[in-house]
Amino acid sequence: MTTHFKPFNTLFLESQSILEPKGKVITRRLSDMAELYQDQKSAQSLMDENPLVYEVFNVEVPESIEHIQHCITVLYPGKVGEEFFMTKGHYHEILNRAEIYFCFKGEGKLVMQTQDGDYEELDMKPGTISYVPPNWAHRTVNTGEEPFVFFAAYPGDAGHNYGDIEKIGFRKVIVNESGEVKTVDNPRYQLS
Amino acid sequence: MTTHFKPFNTLFLESQSILEPKGKVITRRLSDMAELYQDQKSAQSLMDENPLVYEVFNVEVPESIEHIQHCITVLYPGKVGEEFFMTKGHYHEILNRAEIYFCFKGEGKLVMQTQDGDYEELDMKPGTISYVPPNWAHRTVNTGEEPFVFFAAYPGDAGHNYGDIEKIGFRKVIVNESGEVKTVDNPRYQLS
Repeated sequence: MTTHFKPFNTLFLESQSILEPKGKVITRRLSDMAELYQDQKSAQSLMDENPLVYEVFNVEVPESIEHIQHCITVLYPGKVGEEFFMTKGHYHEILNRAEIYFCFKGEGKLVMQTQDGDYEELDMKPGTISYVPPNWAHRTVNTGEEPFVFFAAYPGDAGHNYGDIEKIGFRKVIVNESGEVKTVDNPRYQLS
Repeated sequence: MTTHFKPFNTLFLESQSILEPKGKVITRRLSDMAELYQDQKSAQSLMDENPLVYEVFNVEVPESIEHIQHCITVLYPGKVGEEFFMTKGHYHEILNRAEIYFCFKGEGKLVMQTQDGDYEELDMKPGTISYVPPNWAHRTVNTGEEPFVFFAAYPGDAGHNYGDIEKIGFRKVIVNESGEVKTVDNPRYQLS
């Protein structure tokens, strides 16, 4: 008789934006991703403070196609210069793997692009289910003033390729312009 | 240049338990599944009324491994005899595909079994994230007095095999016993 992987529950406590059990937590401070922001002078000036940009609470399942990875991300409010706090952003290592988001709190943008240079963005707010189809790199941006909290699920074998985004960037960046949220060209973007 | 499947949003309106856009809706009334309940006399006596047992609001994406199917299920409160309203329950057609649930409203149970005869159940309430690993048939049961509402996501190619559960049943059934929720043996269950 085969031994099967057992079903289990994780509890999302919405009022505190935490999981029970807590799972494996990835913590990203500014120092982990400072080079991704446009305004390097502002990034450097924030380095002493080194703010917490986001946390990912991962539920651990095997990294194979049969399984579904899932996590809660808490992306904090803040800016580096006029650019909003964001996640590093990645393609899936297996490029043609989708991802799905469910927003619980706050507001933000989901920015996406393909290796061909297509660019799309979606607004997220509580109740938004956002679909990232296969082949799209994805990054979330907190455009609000409170933590931006969402659930994500993706195939077990998808993996993360951060390197391409670190090198090339996204075509657009999301900035505060006189109190408004604007999408502007990223001068550092280069089509591979 | 490849044409990529475009990212898109769906909005879950929690107060009304509906999706915008509505998507493809599957409606299951008692007549669609009466034979699955233990108490056939009670099932027959409810046939004129033919109550709505559950609705599934599907977001449509291609049925291939690259994609992630997702939907909202609204499972209504009710009983057939002493057995609580439930979904039909199924294995995935591709057996080793997982599924993930996120509960928003109400309360219920997620009952699961493997083809080897293993049985597991999990309680669901708002905030519960339930993981159905590969190879487990799954059914949800509304053990409360209000609609039981949850989000589900599973691989695009998983498919549904309802036939085996229709034939064999689950090992256990969830019933009301003097006002308490009880899990009892299903006398009609037969290990394949």
